[in-house]
Amino acid sequence: MTRLITLLTDFGTADGYVGEVKGVLASLAPGATIVDVAHDVAPHDVDGARLALARYWRRFPEGTVHLVVVDPGVGSTRGALATATEGRYLVGPDNGVLSPALLYAGARCVSLSIPAGAAPTFHGRDVFAPAAAQLALGASLETLGAVEENPVIRRTPEATRREDGAVQGEVITVDRFGNAVTNLLALRGGQVQVNGLSLALRRTYADAAEGEPMALVGSSGLVEIAVRDGNAAERLGLKRGSGVALLPLR
Amino acid sequence: MTRLITLLTDFGTADGYVGEVKGVLASLAPGATIVDVAHDVAPHDVDGARLALARYWRRFPEGTVHLVVVDPGVGSTRGALATATEGRYLVGPDNGVLSPALLYAGARCVSLSIPAGAAPTFHGRDVFAPAAAQLALGASLETLGAVEENPVIRRTPEATRREDGAVQGEVITVDRFGNAVTNLLALRGGQVQVNGLSLALRRTYADAAEGEPMALVGSSGLVEIAVRDGNAAERLGLKRGSGVALLPLR
Amino acid sequence: MTRLITLLTDFGTADGYVGEVKGVLASLAPGATIVDVAHDVAPHDVDGARLALARYWRRFPEGTVHLVVVDPGVGSTRGALATATEGRYLVGPDNGVLSPALLYAGARCVSLSIPAGAAPTFHGRDVFAPAAAQLALGASLETLGAVEENPVIRRTPEATRREDGAVQGEVITVDRFGNAVTNLLALRGGQVQVNGLSLALRRTYADAAEGEPMALVGSSGLVEIAVRDGNAAERLGLKRGSGVALLPLR
Repeated sequence: MTRLITLLTDFGTADGYVGEVKGVLASLAPGATIVDVAHDVAPHDVDGARLALARYWRRFPEGTVHLVVVDPGVGSTRGALATATEGRYLVGPDNGVLSPALLYAGARCVSLSIPAGAAPTFHGRDVFAPAAAQLALGASLETLGAVEENPVIRRTPEATRREDGAVQGEVITVDRFGNAVTNLLALRGGQVQVNGLSLALRRTYADAAEGEPMALVGSSGLVEIAVRDGNAAERLGLKRGSGVALLPLR
Repeated sequence: MTRLITLLTDFGTADGYVGEVKGVLASLAPGATIVDVAHDVAPHDVDGARLALARYWRRFPEGTVHLVVVDPGVGSTRGALATATEGRYLVGPDNGVLSPALLYAGARCVSLSIPAGAAPTFHGRDVFAPAAAQLALGASLETLGAVEENPVIRRTPEATRREDGAVQGEVITVDRFGNAVTNLLALRGGQVQVNGLSLALRRTYADAAEGEPMALVGSSGLVEIAVRDGNAAERLGLKRGSGVALLPLR
Repeated sequence: MTRLITLLTDFGTADGYVGEVKGVLASLAPGATIVDVAHDVAPHDVDGARLALARYWRRFPEGTVHLVVVDPGVGSTRGALATATEGRYLVGPDNGVLSPALLYAGARCVSLSIPAGAAPTFHGRDVFAPAAAQLALGASLETLGAVEENPVIRRTPEATRREDGAVQGEVITVDRFGNAVTNLLALRGGQVQVNGLSLALRRTYADAAEGEPMALVGSSGLVEIAVRDGNAAERLGLKRGSGVALLPLR
């Protein structure tokens, strides 16, 4: 069976680091197929990587190994993890980046040991890639390390219900188009308040006039703020943590 | 037969969108090989993607499926297309981005239906990737939708002949090196006028002195303006639409 | 046998150039697996590509073909090279970018001939990709051209010993994280002097306080200057060529 290994990192696309990791994977798991997800996660942005991972990890077939290396604490006492859940495998630092999978019931988790020769500044190459290669070759999770019962979990902040009945949330990420994704769910419609604007929920970007700010339910089911053919984050001054409220329909 | 699926998008390389599309492809067409072309097309730049596509689509072997998602009108009434021509398949929005293939004699074209559960903001994941996967598995084009006789066509603006015998053209794209590619053909040499400069056509970048502006016939057969070891677009203030004229040899 | 072909270029990730090269590879060597290393090497930065290549080329399995196209002299009299060493193959311009492999004892090297129809501005597509494809198909190096005895070699500048016993080096590259990699080796520890600061060598990034400048031995064995969770190059004004000294332990 050919296994897929996907790669999400903050290594960028100018240096040789991605090449080193891929060389290790290709050498240790010659039959595996390497799939790039993204390498331009902002440096050290664990939450950005976590939210990206949440979007794609279950869309790949069972047996896929997801390697995620956004690792500001490399070489410190932070642990190194591999987990198996929903038929997929995930490997990365124990800093919460793998939370979307760790939060699934039945997730099994092991703490990877650090090989003696591992560079303390590059566990992506020397710890995580070798573990991902072994999983791609069919190794069972439990052969890679001791069971880890308490991996670090990072959660998206939860929206809260206000006294006036509105739901108070915030921007959790801004994507490449400048769309500001929030932590608000809007199953039954509503009115979105952001930076003094009140925006009705639209169905898609093209339902607003060019340059007009709007709110809609994005492709991950969360409310997002957008500007048709424009950049909402720049236009409205939104960034991660900016407040956004949802007023339910009366 | 293993089919190739190439990917050209404006999704960027920091978010999880590319991962979602690849996860769908890998799940629905497990044997296909996914090939990245580029994900940093400027957001919503349909013409930029169209010109990039023109460069590569016929260089891949017959049977290749080219998936192109630059889709500012996603979820609106714009159609969704798949086309077969010259032995290759192309899938993407009906906004003209696939024109390089649609303009070939014999191109067959169908309008993809939008599945009920498709997110109105992400047809790349929910409409185009599933169609590309089916084509990669060997489905015939006509099983994917009804014949579309009038797909949207976008064309590169044509150069015009001036009364003085010169050909008046314009910059159609600026590449990563700052080279300004024009819509001018120069089979028999000539002199290029741009921003008050008169430039003889050279054979290659190294035929000018360092930092010197020059004109040459680029690798797609079109006249381009370059600066040796420099950025011509910045240096000469050129962008898409900037006028450039070609004076034929006397 | 399935061969790998890796790709390192300065083509960027917005245009169609990477697609053209991959189309040629996929057409000429249908069974080969194409692996992206990086396409955002700074335009024309031969030394940046050379240093990236040094990191990864031997980590891939034997038989791998490394295609490297950073080629400011394309179409000029600079040669076109293919080399075989340590069981790997490398293809690229004869401008020193392949030096990490050329400097290995036993490296065999041939000068590729330029096909008549090759575009003088795009040897990546018309010269190097076809040669890489042939090597991936199992062609022997010597069938690709005449033996080249004197390929261009570029070397990392060597550090020098000062009269006071310190070793004077310099920054050779700055990575995406802003870490400034130097040409200093520090097998036995020491104190690093840079821009008036004196920094003890740490083991890893997490051994400094947040925002604190530090020195450490990076994953390629060279001293680098870093700032924990920050960008050392911006913070300390470092770029390629900036002086850095190492004072040995007394």
